[in-house]
Amino acid sequence: MKIALAQLNYHIGNYEANVEKIISTARKSKENGADLVVFSELAVCGYCPDDLLYRTDFINDCNDAVEKIIAECADIPIIIGAPMSSGKQLFNAALFINKGVVKSQCKMVLPNADVLNEHRYFEPSDKFDLIDVDGVKIALAVGGDVLDYPMGMLAKLNPNFIVNISAVPYSHDTSYQQKLSEVALKYKLPLLNVNQVGANTNMIYEGRSIAFNENGKVISECKPFEEDLQIVDTDLFKSAGVELRKFDTTESIFRAITLGLRDYFAKMNFKTAVLGLSGGIDSAVVLALAVNALGRENVHSILMPTCYSTSHSVDDSLEMLKRTKSSYNIIPIEDLRKQFGVAMSEAFEGTKPGLAEENIQARLRGSILMAYSNKFGNILLNTSNKSEEAVGYSTLYGDMCGSLSLLGDVYKTEVYRLARYINEHCGNIIPENIITKAPSAELRPDQKDQDSLPPYDVLDGILNCYLENNMPADEIKAKGFDAETVDFVLKLVKRVEYKRFQAPPILRVSSCAFGHSQSVPLVARY
Amino acid sequence: MKIALAQLNYHIGNYEANVEKIISTARKSKENGADLVVFSELAVCGYCPDDLLYRTDFINDCNDAVEKIIAECADIPIIIGAPMSSGKQLFNAALFINKGVVKSQCKMVLPNADVLNEHRYFEPSDKFDLIDVDGVKIALAVGGDVLDYPMGMLAKLNPNFIVNISAVPYSHDTSYQQKLSEVALKYKLPLLNVNQVGANTNMIYEGRSIAFNENGKVISECKPFEEDLQIVDTDLFKSAGVELRKFDTTESIFRAITLGLRDYFAKMNFKTAVLGLSGGIDSAVVLALAVNALGRENVHSILMPTCYSTSHSVDDSLEMLKRTKSSYNIIPIEDLRKQFGVAMSEAFEGTKPGLAEENIQARLRGSILMAYSNKFGNILLNTSNKSEEAVGYSTLYGDMCGSLSLLGDVYKTEVYRLARYINEHCGNIIPENIITKAPSAELRPDQKDQDSLPPYDVLDGILNCYLENNMPADEIKAKGFDAETVDFVLKLVKRVEYKRFQAPPILRVSSCAFGHSQSVPLVARY
Repeated sequence: MKIALAQLNYHIGNYEANVEKIISTARKSKENGADLVVFSELAVCGYCPDDLLYRTDFINDCNDAVEKIIAECADIPIIIGAPMSSGKQLFNAALFINKGVVKSQCKMVLPNADVLNEHRYFEPSDKFDLIDVDGVKIALAVGGDVLDYPMGMLAKLNPNFIVNISAVPYSHDTSYQQKLSEVALKYKLPLLNVNQVGANTNMIYEGRSIAFNENGKVISECKPFEEDLQIVDTDLFKSAGVELRKFDTTESIFRAITLGLRDYFAKMNFKTAVLGLSGGIDSAVVLALAVNALGRENVHSILMPTCYSTSHSVDDSLEMLKRTKSSYNIIPIEDLRKQFGVAMSEAFEGTKPGLAEENIQARLRGSILMAYSNKFGNILLNTSNKSEEAVGYSTLYGDMCGSLSLLGDVYKTEVYRLARYINEHCGNIIPENIITKAPSAELRPDQKDQDSLPPYDVLDGILNCYLENNMPADEIKAKGFDAETVDFVLKLVKRVEYKRFQAPPILRVSSCAFGHSQSVPLVARY
Repeated sequence: MKIALAQLNYHIGNYEANVEKIISTARKSKENGADLVVFSELAVCGYCPDDLLYRTDFINDCNDAVEKIIAECADIPIIIGAPMSSGKQLFNAALFINKGVVKSQCKMVLPNADVLNEHRYFEPSDKFDLIDVDGVKIALAVGGDVLDYPMGMLAKLNPNFIVNISAVPYSHDTSYQQKLSEVALKYKLPLLNVNQVGANTNMIYEGRSIAFNENGKVISECKPFEEDLQIVDTDLFKSAGVELRKFDTTESIFRAITLGLRDYFAKMNFKTAVLGLSGGIDSAVVLALAVNALGRENVHSILMPTCYSTSHSVDDSLEMLKRTKSSYNIIPIEDLRKQFGVAMSEAFEGTKPGLAEENIQARLRGSILMAYSNKFGNILLNTSNKSEEAVGYSTLYGDMCGSLSLLGDVYKTEVYRLARYINEHCGNIIPENIITKAPSAELRPDQKDQDSLPPYDVLDGILNCYLENNMPADEIKAKGFDAETVDFVLKLVKRVEYKRFQAPPILRVSSCAFGHSQSVPLVARY
C-alpha cells in the first residue's frame, strides 16, 4: 500500500485556494501510484482559525469546501482534517473519505496551553475506532491524541499502523518528531504523521511530515519549512530505517523566520517592506532576512541619524546597503528633534532632559517609518529582539512600531549567531563591525546597552530560565546567577508587561514567545 | 442561620492585601452575627491570574495565604475561592473552612469562551457533595457550575439551599443575576451568590452579590460596582422577596468605566493621567470620566491644534476645562507638522498629500502625549471609541496610543448617551456644542466622519449584529440594513484587525469587547 504524505501550506479561510491545492495534490498523488493521501489537521480551513470558528458562515463555507473535495476525490481515498459540526457541537475531525463515504475520527484531547486554545472552539470526542482501507486497519488520530491516552485505546484494537494528522507550531526547543518516534516504539507500530507547513500570522509550522517503522526509526521524511509530497510504501515498514535527523538550531530559526515573513506577506497580499536601519545588529539582521525572503528590490531602508548617532552607524549601514544592493533614504531627525523640543518647551519648562527626550527620538523615527509605509504601502518590519522585549529596553510607539516582528522571539545572543549564519550562507552581507561593536541604542551621548543591562549572555540565561522554563527566582539563583541581577531582571520583565501588550505580532520560534498567547494580567502585583 | 455575603475587590497576586481584607471582613462579619462568611471565586489570588497560574511560586504563595486564612479564621466558618493543587493538577476550588478543617468543591464545568480560558489552567473536577454547616446542608458550586449540569446533580442530594461563588465579568448586554434567579426557581431552592467586585486590567466585575428565595425572588442584594457586606438571615428565605432590579444601561456603563479606571490606577500604583483634548465628543467624555474617577487635580489635558482644527475645537475644549477646573497645555503642532514635511520632502518627492500626511498629525500628537507622560509620569488615557476601533477610523501609534482605553468598548451612539448622563449627574461639564456638532477627525480641511463612514446609528447597528451577535452578512442585510453598507462595514472590520492587535487594553463593558480575548488571525482571508 502506498500512502502519500501531503505536506501543504494552507491559508486560513481561503477555501478556494486550499481546496484547489488539496484536489490537485490528491490527483498528483494518484498519478504517482498512491492508494491513500493524507492531509494535515484542519487542512480545509487552515490551522488555526481561532475565533472565526465561532462564525456560522465560516463553518458553512468549510462544509461546502469539504463537499467539493468529496466530489472531486471520488477515485482515491483521502484522510483530511476539518472542523465538523454535530448539532451545536464542533469537533476537530480527521475525515476518512473513500468513494464518497465519510468516516470521522475526532480529537479527544484538546490542547489548551500556550498558543493552543482548542477547548475554546471544540468539544472533546469520546468515540474511537480503526478505519479500514481495503482490509488494512489504521489507527487514525488527530494532533496530540497520538501522544496521549487515546493512542493507548486505539492500539488495543490491533491496527496495522498509525496515521496521525497534525498542525504543530514550530519551536526550536521542542521536538515533536522525537515524541512521535517514541510513540511508534512504545506501541510497536509503524507511524505516519502529516504536519502542516507554512505560517499564519505569528505561528510557523515546520512540516517535517514523517514515517517511522515500529522501532521508531525514520523511513521517510518531508522537507522542513516547505511544501512537499512523499509517497511511502508500507512495505518499507520492514526496513531498518534511520535515526531522526537533528537540524542546526540557528539554521532552523533562520528558515522558520524566512518562511514566517514570506507567508505573512503572501497571505496578507503585501509586497514591499520598510525598516529603520540603525547600524546595530538587530536591524542589520532584519534587513538581511527581509532581502533574502522578499527580494532586495522589495526592501527599503531608512537611516535616521541624530547628533547622538556615531559616524560608524551610518557608515556601517551604508556599507551593508551597498552589499545588499537595496534602496534607502537618509532622513536626519536632528531638526525635527529640535523642533519637538521647541514645541514641548513650555510644558517641559524647568525640567532636565532625560528619558522623555530619549524616547522622542525613537517615536519620531517610528512616525517617519509609518509615514513612509502609509505613503508607499511598504510594510514596516519591527526590529526588536526578545531580550529587549523581555526587559522593556525599547520605546512603545517608537522602535516597537511595526506590522510584524521578525526577531521578537530571538534572544540577542541568538541574533549574533543568526548574523554569522547569514554571512556564511547568504553572502557576506553584514559588515563585521556591525557584529563586533558594543550594542547601543544611541539615544544619548556614549550610551551602551550594558550601562543599563547585564551582559547579554547573562541576561539571556536568566530570561531563558524564567520564560521558557517557568523557574521561580530562587531556582534561577540556585543555578549560579547573581541574586541581585536575577531580581533586577525579573522586576523589569514584570514591570514592562504593558509594553508587550501593544507589541506587533512576533514570529514564534520558541516554546515561549511573547504575544497574545502569553497572557499575564497587567495590574497583577506579582 | 446568618450568612455574610462578602463582596470584595481583590488585587491579583497581591496576597498581603487580599489576605488582610479577607481576614478583617471575616472578623467584622462575626461581630455582626454571621454564622458563615462567603467570599468570591479565586478570592485569595484575585480573578483571573491567567498565566501566573502556571508559576509554581505563585501557587505556593497562594497556598501560604490560604494557610494564614485558615489559622486566622478558626472561630468562624468561611467559604472562599482559591486555586487548589492536587499532584500536577490544578483545580478552581471553593474551600469550606470550618475550625481548621478544609473541605473543597471544585469547578466541574470550566468556561472557555470570550475572556475566560479556564481550561488553560484548571482540570475539571468530577467530584461533588453537599457541605454541612451545623446540620444545614448546602449545595456549594463555583462559577458557571450553578447554571450547568453539576447543579442538577447537587440538587438531587436535597440541600437546604445553594451557595455559589463567582467572578463574572460585567457586560451591559447580559444578566447573570437573571440566570441565577431562574436556577433558584428551577430547583425550588434558595440561592446565594457572592460575586467579585472591582476591575483587573480590562476586566470589570460588577459585584451585585445576591440572595434569592426558592421562587427566584430577591431577598438581599449587595451594591453594584463597590465593595459591600450583606448579612442574610436564612429565615428570610420564607419571605416573598422582590423582583430583580433593572439598572439603566448608560448609568451602569458609566459606573463600570469609573470603577475600571480607578482600579487600573490604584492597582498599577498610578496617580495622574494625561489625555489629548480635541474638542470632539470622545475626548470630552474621557476627560469627564477621568476627572470624576481620579479627581480634577490628577488629570491633565493637552490641546494640539493644527491649521485644520476649527476655532470652536479649541474654544469648546477651553470651555470644558474651565468647567472641570483641571490643568492643560496648548501645544500647537503646526510647526512640527511643517518640519516633518521638510524631513520627508526628499523621500516623498513627487507625491500628493494624502493619508500619510493626515496620519503624521495624529502620530505627532501621540508622541507629544507620550513625551508628557514620560516626563511627568501621567498615564496616557486613550480616547478611541468602539465604532472607530471596529472600522479602523483611527491612527495606529497616533490616537490609538494610550495605557488604557476607556471607551474602546462603547459604540459612538452610546458615547453620546454617556455625555448626556454625565451632564445630568456630574455637573453640566461637557459644553453643548461638543455634543451637538458633527463629529470630525480634523485631519484635513472640512473633514467630517460621515464623509467616510455611514451615520453612526447605522454603523453601530451593523457592528452590533456582527460583533455581539455573530451574524453573517446575509442575516444582517435581512434585518433591513443596506446591503452595500453592510459589505463595506464588514470589509473594514476584517481589514483592520492588525490595528486592533496593537491597541491598548480596553475596559470591557459588553459581551464582545475587542482585545486579546477576541482572537482572529491577521492573515485570514475571510
